[in-house]
Amino acid sequence: MAPRLASVWKRFSSTATSTFTAKSVPSKIHLHQPIPDECFPKGYTLTGIHCGVKKDPNAFDLAVLLSTTPTPTSTAACFTRNAFKAAPVTVSQEVLTRSAGRARALVVNSGCANAVTGKQGIEDAWAMVRATDALLGTSSNTNETLVMSTGVIGQHLPIAKIVAGIQNKSSESLGAGFAAWDRFARAFMTTDTFPKLRARTFTVGGENTYRLAGVDKGAGMIHPNMAPHATLLGCIATDAAVSPRSLQSALTYAVDRSFNSISVDGDMSTNDTIVIMANGAAEGTEIDEERDRASYEAFRDELTDFAQNLAQLVVRDGEGATKFVTVSVDGAISYEDAHKVASRISTSALVKTALYGEDANWGRILAATGSIPLSTPLDPTRVSVSFIPTDGSKPLPLLVNGEPEKVDEVRAKEIVSLEDLEIRVDLGLGKESAKYWTCDFSYEYVRINGDYRS
Amino acid sequence: MAPRLASVWKRFSSTATSTFTAKSVPSKIHLHQPIPDECFPKGYTLTGIHCGVKKDPNAFDLAVLLSTTPTPTSTAACFTRNAFKAAPVTVSQEVLTRSAGRARALVVNSGCANAVTGKQGIEDAWAMVRATDALLGTSSNTNETLVMSTGVIGQHLPIAKIVAGIQNKSSESLGAGFAAWDRFARAFMTTDTFPKLRARTFTVGGENTYRLAGVDKGAGMIHPNMAPHATLLGCIATDAAVSPRSLQSALTYAVDRSFNSISVDGDMSTNDTIVIMANGAAEGTEIDEERDRASYEAFRDELTDFAQNLAQLVVRDGEGATKFVTVSVDGAISYEDAHKVASRISTSALVKTALYGEDANWGRILAATGSIPLSTPLDPTRVSVSFIPTDGSKPLPLLVNGEPEKVDEVRAKEIVSLEDLEIRVDLGLGKESAKYWTCDFSYEYVRINGDYRS
Repeated sequence: MAPRLASVWKRFSSTATSTFTAKSVPSKIHLHQPIPDECFPKGYTLTGIHCGVKKDPNAFDLAVLLSTTPTPTSTAACFTRNAFKAAPVTVSQEVLTRSAGRARALVVNSGCANAVTGKQGIEDAWAMVRATDALLGTSSNTNETLVMSTGVIGQHLPIAKIVAGIQNKSSESLGAGFAAWDRFARAFMTTDTFPKLRARTFTVGGENTYRLAGVDKGAGMIHPNMAPHATLLGCIATDAAVSPRSLQSALTYAVDRSFNSISVDGDMSTNDTIVIMANGAAEGTEIDEERDRASYEAFRDELTDFAQNLAQLVVRDGEGATKFVTVSVDGAISYEDAHKVASRISTSALVKTALYGEDANWGRILAATGSIPLSTPLDPTRVSVSFIPTDGSKPLPLLVNGEPEKVDEVRAKEIVSLEDLEIRVDLGLGKESAKYWTCDFSYEYVRINGDYRS
Repeated sequence: MAPRLASVWKRFSSTATSTFTAKSVPSKIHLHQPIPDECFPKGYTLTGIHCGVKKDPNAFDLAVLLSTTPTPTSTAACFTRNAFKAAPVTVSQEVLTRSAGRARALVVNSGCANAVTGKQGIEDAWAMVRATDALLGTSSNTNETLVMSTGVIGQHLPIAKIVAGIQNKSSESLGAGFAAWDRFARAFMTTDTFPKLRARTFTVGGENTYRLAGVDKGAGMIHPNMAPHATLLGCIATDAAVSPRSLQSALTYAVDRSFNSISVDGDMSTNDTIVIMANGAAEGTEIDEERDRASYEAFRDELTDFAQNLAQLVVRDGEGATKFVTVSVDGAISYEDAHKVASRISTSALVKTALYGEDANWGRILAATGSIPLSTPLDPTRVSVSFIPTDGSKPLPLLVNGEPEKVDEVRAKEIVSLEDLEIRVDLGLGKESAKYWTCDFSYEYVRINGDYRS
C-alpha cells in the first residue's frame, strides 16, 4: 500500500513553503565570567590547545589535565549506558578498573567522537592515553589517563595530530588558575555557545577549606554533512582527599541528581562521560563513607549541588532553548518514582512546546504525569500542580488534589513569560522528591537539528 | 540563583524575532474516499450529528452506533494506561466488566474530553450511557453502551445538549452504509484534517464472508486558551461472530501492533480508547481461540492488519507531519525487545528532526537504538541499519554489522526525500520483529502545539 499512497500523496503535495516568525534565542555568553584563581583546586596543571581536529586554527580541540600531587589521586567516573559505547568510553572504563580508581590524568578531544570506529578507534584512544601518561613522568606500567572524545561519529581521529599536540604543544601551555581552566573548558566545546566552567570553595565539618572546579559541554550538532551527535562530557576536580570508593559513590549520587536529571531532547549519546578527581592537595583527613559518614555526606551534598550547577549550564545552552525550566516532583513514595515523573514531564514534546508558546497548560503536565507506571499507582485525587515564579512572587496553583483551580490567566501568563520558571507537581503519596531541569522546544531546535537543506 | 540569572538573562534577551521558511504540510484529504456500501458490516445502525458541544453548527460532535442483531453482540476494548483516566474511560471499563463483554452500543462526543471533571464528569458519562441504552429499546437493567469523549480537558460536558442529541436528533438520522459511517467518522474529529474511515470484506477459512469497518481520530485538540489534548479514539465493528474472550484477546494483540505502535509526539492521553464489536449478523460459526485456533488466528491477523491501516491514518494526519515513516526492527530475541527499540527510534526528537530535514542520519538512529535496556544486551558488531525506499528500488545499507558503509549521499538523499520511507534496523540477535509508524518533527508541529501568542 505504501508505494501507492506515496504516489497519490505526491500529487497533493505542494513545493510551496510556509514562513514562521519565532522568538529569537537569547545569547548566553554572559554565563561565562572570570572566577578568582584562589577558587581553583591546588595540585592540578591543565590546558586547552588547538591541535588540528577542528579546521578553525583558533578553535581549541584538545584538553589535558594532570594531577601533580605526590599523594595518591582518586578518580571516579560515570559513563553512558548506551549499548554503542564509543572507543574512549570503553578504554576509560578499562583504565579506571585496572588502576583501581587511581587515574591521575584526563585527555579530551573535541571535533571527532571516535565512535563507531571499530578496532582502529580503540587503538587511537589508547594512543591518547599513553601520550598523556608520558606527561605524568612516572615509569609505572599502569595507565593513569582517562580519555574522552566528542564530535562527529563514524570518523577516525587524526591521531598523529592529537598525539603530537599532547606530546609537544600541550606541555608548553600547562598552567593553573582561571586562565588555564578557561582554555581547558574551551577545548571541550562543540556547538556550545559558551564555555562551561564553575569553581568554588567549601568546607567539610569546618575543618579545612577545599576547592572544587568543573567543566562540562553539552548539546551539539557538528559537521553539517555527517552524523551529528549530542554528547555530554564533564570533568570535576577537587583538592580534597577522598577514597576511591567514596568518590565513586558520591559521584554516582551526584550524577543521578544532576547530569541524569537534565533533558534537552531526551536522546542519550554514545560518549557521555563525567569524570571526577580528588588529589588531596589541600591536605586534611581523607573522606570515606565508612570511616566518617557525616563528612562523606557533607562532601557528597556539596558535590551534588556543584554538579547541578554544571548540568544546568548545559540546559541553559540547550539547542534552541528560550526558557530554563525546573520540574520539581514532591510527595512521591520513592526518589525513583519522583525522578521518573520529573523525567517524563521534562521530555514531553507537548509540555515543551507549550512552554515555548508560554501557555500555562496544566493538562499536558497532568497527562505526562499519569503516563508512566510507578511503584505505587497514582491517586488522581491527591495530585496537585502549580507554577512557581522565579521572581519570588506567589506560586500559582493550577490543580489542587485533582481538582482544577479557577486560574487567573493573566497571572499564569506573567509566570510562563519568565525566562526561568518552575513547574511543581505534588503526587500526595509520600515524602520523596526529585528535580529535573529542561528547556522549551522551539522552531530553532527544529532548524538546528532538521538542518533543512532546500 | 535562579532569580538572579533570570534578571541577568533578561538583559541579554532581545525581543527581536527570527523567521523560518519551512516546507508546507501537504493536504491529506484525499485519504478519505467513498467506500462501497457492501463493505460495511451488517446489523449496525449509526450516525453522527451536531448536538452543540462544538460552536460551529456544521461540525458534528456526537456519534452513536447500535448493534441491531437479535444474536448476542460481543464487545471488547483497550483503554489508556494513564493514571488520570477520564470519566468516560472509567465508566466504559465498568460497563464492559458488568456486561461481561456484551455491550451493544457506543456513544462518542468530540469537543470536550470530560477529563479531570470529578464526580460530575462520572455522572455525565453515565447519563450518556443511559440515554443511548434507551435507543436499544431493551428493558434490561444492564447498561449496554460504551462511552468515549475527546476534546478540551478540565471542562464539564454540556450534558443536556448531548442527552437531547442522543434522544431526539440521533435517532432521526440513524442508518447504515457509507453515508452513515461517514457521518459517524466526522463526529469523532477534533483537529483531524480528514475523517478516518476504512472498511473491507474478509473470509475466515474460506467459509463465510465477513465485513469489517473502522473509524478513528487522532492527534490534537485545540481550544487556544484551554488545555489542548491529544487523544486517540477508535471504533471497529464486524458482522463476524466472535466470543467475548477471543474478541478481547484479538483486540489486545492487534492494538499492541497498531495503535500501540504509532507515535506522533510520544505523549499518552487520558482518554485513549479503542472499542470493537462483533455482532454475528453475517452468521457463520462463532470464532473462539480454544475451539478453533486456526480460525481465531485468521481473524486476529485480519483485525491486526486492519487496525494497522486505521492507526497509520493517525500518523499520516499527525500534527505538522510531512513524512510517513515505518520503523522496522528485525533480529530481536523477543517481540517486546523489537517493539521497545522501534518505539525509541520513533520517538527520538533527533531522529524526527533529521527526517524533517531529509538528512540520512544513521548516527542518531544508532544512538537511539542503543539507548534503552533490553532483555538481551545488544552486540554493536551485529547491528545493521538501512533505508528502504517505498518506490520499490534497492535498499540502502548505512551500517552493516556495526561498520559504517560508504554511503552514496545522492542516493540517500533520494530516499529520504520520499514522503513515505522505511528505516530498517537488524539487531542480529534473534528472529523476532516489530514495526512502528511515526512522522517527522516540523516547524508546523511547534507552531500547532506552541501556539505562540506574541
